[in-house]
Amino acid sequence: MASIFTKIIQREIPAEIIAEDANYIAFLDIMPLVKGHVLVVPKVEVDYLFDLEDEVLAGLHVFAKKVAKAIDKTIPCTRVGVAVIGLEVPHVHVHLVPLRSMDDINFTRPKLKLSREELAEIGNVIRSGMEG
Amino acid sequence: MASIFTKIIQREIPAEIIAEDANYIAFLDIMPLVKGHVLVVPKVEVDYLFDLEDEVLAGLHVFAKKVAKAIDKTIPCTRVGVAVIGLEVPHVHVHLVPLRSMDDINFTRPKLKLSREELAEIGNVIRSGMEG
Repeated sequence: MASIFTKIIQREIPAEIIAEDANYIAFLDIMPLVKGHVLVVPKVEVDYLFDLEDEVLAGLHVFAKKVAKAIDKTIPCTRVGVAVIGLEVPHVHVHLVPLRSMDDINFTRPKLKLSREELAEIGNVIRSGMEG
Repeated sequence: MASIFTKIIQREIPAEIIAEDANYIAFLDIMPLVKGHVLVVPKVEVDYLFDLEDEVLAGLHVFAKKVAKAIDKTIPCTRVGVAVIGLEVPHVHVHLVPLRSMDDINFTRPKLKLSREELAEIGNVIRSGMEG
């Protein structure tokens, strides 16, 4: 069965998409730790990060860098943190989290509940920071 | 001034080194979240992950994959999680954390205090899982 992320890639489930190319996609986490929390996902549906082919793994992080730079430019933060945990959805996803403190990337915290309008606004802001 | 990680690379400070090549090094975190917590560091002393050149960033994660596979083989865990936070030491470091639960990668938790002997033993165990 297709993962929830594959359904986003196939436009079966809506998402606030920030960037996409042939191999990767980035969209807002709908249960964010902080405003501007983005997921970066390879289109190939692999469960575990370290089962990705070297080339796909390398490209994933280079793609994530472009998105992180847009977050840095547009969302107030000290820097963008990275986490890959993968105990829930069985499709690789890199969390990009704009940080001001260590607790901003603590996944045991309650998540924010944002409206569709709030997510759309954050999506617009981050997309405005994407280059090219 | 050289970062604490550069001092490890230059063998001015001891560390339990797991793997090393021309561009990257991996060693045990001396204040681990769990046993088997490893730091992967590029030898170039750059503060922020997303300021690394694409090629160095890509290579860092491919190098980390080899180390993660050794952790997976040798340390009891569900999988190896990844975090890059960087609010403390100003030299890029990727945390590889053997996970059983989300709380294992919560950096606001108290860290473990392990003796030099315990670290040496964990280092031996993980190195035994490295290929080639």
